[in-house]
Amino acid sequence: MFREKLTEATDRQRSLLCVGLDPDPRLAPAHLVGQDGWVERFCLGIVEATSDLVCAYKPNLAFFEALGLDGWHGLKRTLDGLPRDLVSIGDAKRGDIGSTAEAYAKALYEVWGFDIVTVSPLLGPDTLEPFLRYKDRGIFALCKTSNPGSGALQDLPVPWDGATMPLYQAIARQMAALDAAPSESGAAGQIGLVVGATYSEQAREIRAAAPDLPFLVPGVGAQQGDIWAAVEAGLDRHGRGIVVNASRGITYASRGEDWQQAARDAATALRERLEAARAEVQAARRGDPGQNQQEAGRAQPAAR
Amino acid sequence: MFREKLTEATDRQRSLLCVGLDPDPRLAPAHLVGQDGWVERFCLGIVEATSDLVCAYKPNLAFFEALGLDGWHGLKRTLDGLPRDLVSIGDAKRGDIGSTAEAYAKALYEVWGFDIVTVSPLLGPDTLEPFLRYKDRGIFALCKTSNPGSGALQDLPVPWDGATMPLYQAIARQMAALDAAPSESGAAGQIGLVVGATYSEQAREIRAAAPDLPFLVPGVGAQQGDIWAAVEAGLDRHGRGIVVNASRGITYASRGEDWQQAARDAATALRERLEAARAEVQAARRGDPGQNQQEAGRAQPAAR
Repeated sequence: MFREKLTEATDRQRSLLCVGLDPDPRLAPAHLVGQDGWVERFCLGIVEATSDLVCAYKPNLAFFEALGLDGWHGLKRTLDGLPRDLVSIGDAKRGDIGSTAEAYAKALYEVWGFDIVTVSPLLGPDTLEPFLRYKDRGIFALCKTSNPGSGALQDLPVPWDGATMPLYQAIARQMAALDAAPSESGAAGQIGLVVGATYSEQAREIRAAAPDLPFLVPGVGAQQGDIWAAVEAGLDRHGRGIVVNASRGITYASRGEDWQQAARDAATALRERLEAARAEVQAARRGDPGQNQQEAGRAQPAAR
Repeated sequence: MFREKLTEATDRQRSLLCVGLDPDPRLAPAHLVGQDGWVERFCLGIVEATSDLVCAYKPNLAFFEALGLDGWHGLKRTLDGLPRDLVSIGDAKRGDIGSTAEAYAKALYEVWGFDIVTVSPLLGPDTLEPFLRYKDRGIFALCKTSNPGSGALQDLPVPWDGATMPLYQAIARQMAALDAAPSESGAAGQIGLVVGATYSEQAREIRAAAPDLPFLVPGVGAQQGDIWAAVEAGLDRHGRGIVVNASRGITYASRGEDWQQAARDAATALRERLEAARAEVQAARRGDPGQNQQEAGRAQPAAR
């Protein structure tokens, strides 16, 4: 089950951090780009430098597809090289119907071999069934995305469960219900939500509506989401339940020969800030006033 | 401009028909599957058999991705072989933010070379900007999809323009406004909508809300959408503005040696039914009662 794998990885590595792999020739180390196999050399170089610091890696399929056939070959070799005991998240945001949804599920779980994939809930819960039939895998459904314009549709008030609430909250409740009451194919424990770090207020509401669903939290790096607020809003009652993704701030910390060390340093710093925030939030929830002094960490600027 | 290319192809070919290319080894001609290059041999064999009958082809990226690296190589060779004067629609339903959306736009328009791609509007109009920067290309945004569960979110009533309407209508208006009032990057005339043939009532409302946007209409084949109703609901005031897609009913009409002829026969029949419906609807709109006798065509069962 994907949720157990995520929990185990988070606990064993003592890390909420996921590193996003977005190979971009304009940003990757100049001496690598263009060489044969640079895509997997770059991605697996980042993995080599950070694998003791993270619970998950998240290849973003857009960046591989933008490189054409070389990109797909690089993705295959990257996935072959990922440590098996860490969680692999395929960031693809697929959403389609019937036999097409089946084909995407096959592509992402069988061809590429991801543990979890990001999906869009817009087409309806029937379109997620083909993914949920893979009982040892999981999905993160888009709920409240981190971009400035995410509210245009996601914040619209809709009727749900006898009340009126923003669409993102209705999505959270729909997904929590689907996860709790297994569908024909048995969905229990297979669903998580994408909740951007740039909207911590909304993340708090979503956590209340879906107390047991893991969150994939993008937006703490280049997008300047507040790390402390993201952890405080998203942490579940067990002190876990969030996977905080950073991509460019870590993988492109340097374009020079020191790119691996720079990535390691950035990942170490972010992991420590996440762990400090986690400890502080848990202490505050236990009502331990001494821990509040750690709030100093809260005033630091967001990591790049 | 993509809308001109679509209009030209529709008029020149006298066809509203788009054939979807979904290479599936379980359904494709048995003597082809597994042979080197079967993906492009199958797809281009369908194109060879139907290219005088259609206005567009729609490769569905899910089916190529599900075949792994062979599938991507097959997609590349298929796209290299498509007639340049027909419209290529990349059915990918991508939707992501910022630099990821840019990477998807690059992949679909530059790497693969599609004229139009299907996209999800759930993440907000800012996430469509990277696609709209390609001024000679277009997008079909998901509006009302053809699956049974599409109403779960798409039919929720939302406030929009001072009224309350289903989400799919709000999406139609949002896209019409984006298309009419060019964004910073100049979107005018680049946007269409995906409107399933299984919901002709809703298609009529969407046509009223977005009179000038082309519709991509899936769902007339295996999904049993009513062809006449789809044409009547979707046809714009110029008697065009819909691209009706059929995939399996045409491409898998036979698994035997006669697969190309069977595909040609199925495409011919569907194109004729579409043209008959178009002529009848236009005559009815002109108030020509004599044409109503052609309504006989309406009683025929939907093509497979």
